[in-house]
Amino acid sequence: MGEEVRVTNLHNRDGGNEDQNQEFDIYPLSSYYFGSKDTIPFKDHTLHHHLLRIQSKFFSFSLILCLLLISMSFLSSLILFLIFFLVSYAASGLRTSVEAVLLVELFKHPHLLLLQVRNSIYKLPGGRLRPGESDTDGLKRKLTRKLSVDEDGDGSEWEVGECLGMWWRPDFKTLLYPFLPPNVKQPKECTKVFLVKLPASTKFIVPKNMRLLAVPLCQVHENQKTYGQIISGVPQLLSKFSFNMLES
Amino acid sequence: MGEEVRVTNLHNRDGGNEDQNQEFDIYPLSSYYFGSKDTIPFKDHTLHHHLLRIQSKFFSFSLILCLLLISMSFLSSLILFLIFFLVSYAASGLRTSVEAVLLVELFKHPHLLLLQVRNSIYKLPGGRLRPGESDTDGLKRKLTRKLSVDEDGDGSEWEVGECLGMWWRPDFKTLLYPFLPPNVKQPKECTKVFLVKLPASTKFIVPKNMRLLAVPLCQVHENQKTYGQIISGVPQLLSKFSFNMLES
Repeated sequence: MGEEVRVTNLHNRDGGNEDQNQEFDIYPLSSYYFGSKDTIPFKDHTLHHHLLRIQSKFFSFSLILCLLLISMSFLSSLILFLIFFLVSYAASGLRTSVEAVLLVELFKHPHLLLLQVRNSIYKLPGGRLRPGESDTDGLKRKLTRKLSVDEDGDGSEWEVGECLGMWWRPDFKTLLYPFLPPNVKQPKECTKVFLVKLPASTKFIVPKNMRLLAVPLCQVHENQKTYGQIISGVPQLLSKFSFNMLES
Repeated sequence: MGEEVRVTNLHNRDGGNEDQNQEFDIYPLSSYYFGSKDTIPFKDHTLHHHLLRIQSKFFSFSLILCLLLISMSFLSSLILFLIFFLVSYAASGLRTSVEAVLLVELFKHPHLLLLQVRNSIYKLPGGRLRPGESDTDGLKRKLTRKLSVDEDGDGSEWEVGECLGMWWRPDFKTLLYPFLPPNVKQPKECTKVFLVKLPASTKFIVPKNMRLLAVPLCQVHENQKTYGQIISGVPQLLSKFSFNMLES
């Protein structure tokens, strides 16, 4: 009933610019099947682990670079430094991750599908891009690995929609920003959040060491302490949509 | 320099889906002229005033309705009640407001244009829609009234872009939600936030009782206490864009 008010209102108001009314179809939780498959390794058990890992990768690369420089003449080392700097930054400086917003309907309210690891960390399904991989390809690969029956599938079942937002980590600290802060020239991590449209029915096959949960938007909203900055901001990023709650 | 990293990164990554790279042009603050014009009345000096006003309007309508009902027979009063209920809800139940995100560049960082009233309240330029008015027409009218030389202009200088987000007020309380909370059938207020593209140069003529300020996104971000829920969430709603900082 609540949704009817919203949809009606939008239709009435937007006589002049109907393109502004952005609708998004979601299907009930009951139309999806949830199963499990073999455990897949999970690298970062806490945010602290994650930061340590990306920091150590970055610094081990810098160390090799320094040793090389010491053992060579000035000019050639300068050229090598520049080349290595660019390569090292692309290789291990800025990590780019892609994450998916998957929505289902329950009790007439949109619910977000979240992966839970070890009963504590909540994550949007997704992961890090390979060098040169496009956002869409990378996200399809990650979703297939974590949520599909056939881990080696081509990911064609995932319809990756628009980019909803991006978060930047300027240093090896915990805070993320929805913009590149002034004077930050070498951000360490960028996470892009995409809206992924689910079909009317599908099977989610989740590794045994993870749980897939449907969490209501109203629980996630501004609950940074439990869900972290990215997830707790998703309801705001979705607020422009009016949801069509369909029967499957 | 910071922006270069972002743009380069996006271009490299998105070979496969370039439509995902959403760019937005902004121009330096110095390319705009700021002047003042006569005071315009400002109704709500605090959020408390605002809530009291919309509540009193709503209840005065309900009171008239009750008096009418008492003085009539049952069947006709029932029919009248239904008609009045629908009309009253459309007329004074749900208020719809539209607000504009206007961006300028300063020190290589995007700044948000905010109206300040009485040295305290910050507001995005905009206001309430008239009954039947489209979002775009209403926003152009409000922007012209508050920011243009000619108050009676047609508002053609304002290029209203996409809706970035919507906020709902389920009752006459202060909290807003970026979704219609479950079980809320009659929200009291809906505020839609639109991205408005500024020309390379223009004149902002602001009423004397208001000030137009350019506030950096990094200052606004998560600063709910100073700027309120809507404004403090704008950086997140803008995070999907990479900004082209142009010379005017």
